[in-house]
Amino acid sequence: MDDLLQLGKQALSSQPFNVIVGAELTCFSPGRAELIIPITPQLKQQHGFVHGGVISYAADNALTAAGASVLGPAAVTSEYKLNYLRPAIGTALIARATVIYSGKTQAVCRCDVFVVDEGKESLCAVSQGTIARISRSSEAQD
Amino acid sequence: MDDLLQLGKQALSSQPFNVIVGAELTCFSPGRAELIIPITPQLKQQHGFVHGGVISYAADNALTAAGASVLGPAAVTSEYKLNYLRPAIGTALIARATVIYSGKTQAVCRCDVFVVDEGKESLCAVSQGTIARISRSSEAQD
Amino acid sequence: MDDLLQLGKQALSSQPFNVIVGAELTCFSPGRAELIIPITPQLKQQHGFVHGGVISYAADNALTAAGASVLGPAAVTSEYKLNYLRPAIGTALIARATVIYSGKTQAVCRCDVFVVDEGKESLCAVSQGTIARISRSSEAQD
Amino acid sequence: MDDLLQLGKQALSSQPFNVIVGAELTCFSPGRAELIIPITPQLKQQHGFVHGGVISYAADNALTAAGASVLGPAAVTSEYKLNYLRPAIGTALIARATVIYSGKTQAVCRCDVFVVDEGKESLCAVSQGTIARISRSSEAQD
Repeated sequence: MDDLLQLGKQALSSQPFNVIVGAELTCFSPGRAELIIPITPQLKQQHGFVHGGVISYAADNALTAAGASVLGPAAVTSEYKLNYLRPAIGTALIARATVIYSGKTQAVCRCDVFVVDEGKESLCAVSQGTIARISRSSEAQD
Repeated sequence: MDDLLQLGKQALSSQPFNVIVGAELTCFSPGRAELIIPITPQLKQQHGFVHGGVISYAADNALTAAGASVLGPAAVTSEYKLNYLRPAIGTALIARATVIYSGKTQAVCRCDVFVVDEGKESLCAVSQGTIARISRSSEAQD
Repeated sequence: MDDLLQLGKQALSSQPFNVIVGAELTCFSPGRAELIIPITPQLKQQHGFVHGGVISYAADNALTAAGASVLGPAAVTSEYKLNYLRPAIGTALIARATVIYSGKTQAVCRCDVFVVDEGKESLCAVSQGTIARISRSSEAQD
Repeated sequence: MDDLLQLGKQALSSQPFNVIVGAELTCFSPGRAELIIPITPQLKQQHGFVHGGVISYAADNALTAAGASVLGPAAVTSEYKLNYLRPAIGTALIARATVIYSGKTQAVCRCDVFVVDEGKESLCAVSQGTIARISRSSEAQD
């Protein structure tokens, strides 16, 4: 496993909330990040679909990871927007984020969230947002 | 407790993911909804702040609840946008959402998320989104 | 007329595109800005409503102005989101923006756009976005 | 020229505001739309860049057109989000929008806005939004 992916995995596993959700970083290279979340019963809402909050979590985290891949580890999501497309039913969520534009202190990223059911991926949400590098002196966000 | 709030509480407690997060509906009246999430260690990220995913969860759910207060229980978030403002450190999150505009099938809502620390509320995120009523024949979302 | 409003009016009138649209700054004080756009035939789309582009223009500019009221004149919109609520029919648009949060280099603002018809204001769009101060060394945006 | 593109061009040229901006539809096929706006002095702001309002206009209209390519001509933008990436300096704007998901009454689309300078395209803004079909009985938007 390459060093960058290893560092990303450590960052993710150090977050208590992420341990509950169970997201795993499966790709982390300059300008790209991929998260996989196995769908367990506790991640669902009352109709059996994956809870929207889990989908948002996947998108937000993949956006942050993509931004961090070019800005460095002290990166946070400043803002993002998400459109839910269809109910997520299946065995896993995959969130793939890419950097669209990167400056010195900010990156704009997009993320597609897929649900995997019987080996087939369906797009279930799309997102776009801004990732910012936190400087010591700066106002912190996220 | 009034009937509407009671119904809202039941809907929330029937969602496995919500049981993990621990959100409680504290206001649910036509055009308004309020959620409170006690901040526990498992809801934090590696720096001790509340994880962004929990803040998004609070905003998204409060938006849905506000929309459902005017559209009926079969309401889902279609899309939303969120700006994180400052790190959330404290004992609880409060998400307050209001309906800005409501039509027959959709409502546009705004939400403010506050963190409570030593009895003082600080705004930590703001959100805006669309809530849609699901019809049997319609494409489902969220 | 106070100095701040006078400065804002000059900035707006120095923009060729704004001269075409005909927006006028009617309030510009720390944390708040208001624009008025008289509705002329050329600002409409094919159904007689105000063109969505004019509504977006009003929101985007009022957001920038509100941000500039706390960040200084070298402020641009980094990103924003807008929900159209109803067709705009009337004699004027009014966009009112307020600063929700302001840090050293960024401000998060909200804007409500109203259409005035026979003296009555109706909310026709709502927006939320980030305004950034441009530094000489920074990546420019907008 | 194919019939669909011809219809789209007519719709655009019937909008007074568009005549001022000078946008031309250059692609209109199921799931895709492209607009080109020649950059004239009147479309600029005070620093010589293309005014943000024109970039938003391009994105919003290309999103609507892409949605209309699958939903039919009675389509309007319900909501959208836009990130400005860099100042737009050049001879023309090109907005390319694609349908990401399409249901019976709504489509979610993305748009990339490029500025052309000396024959080279640079991405200057990215957008994502929801396009809705207006039914006679429905609440109208945009």
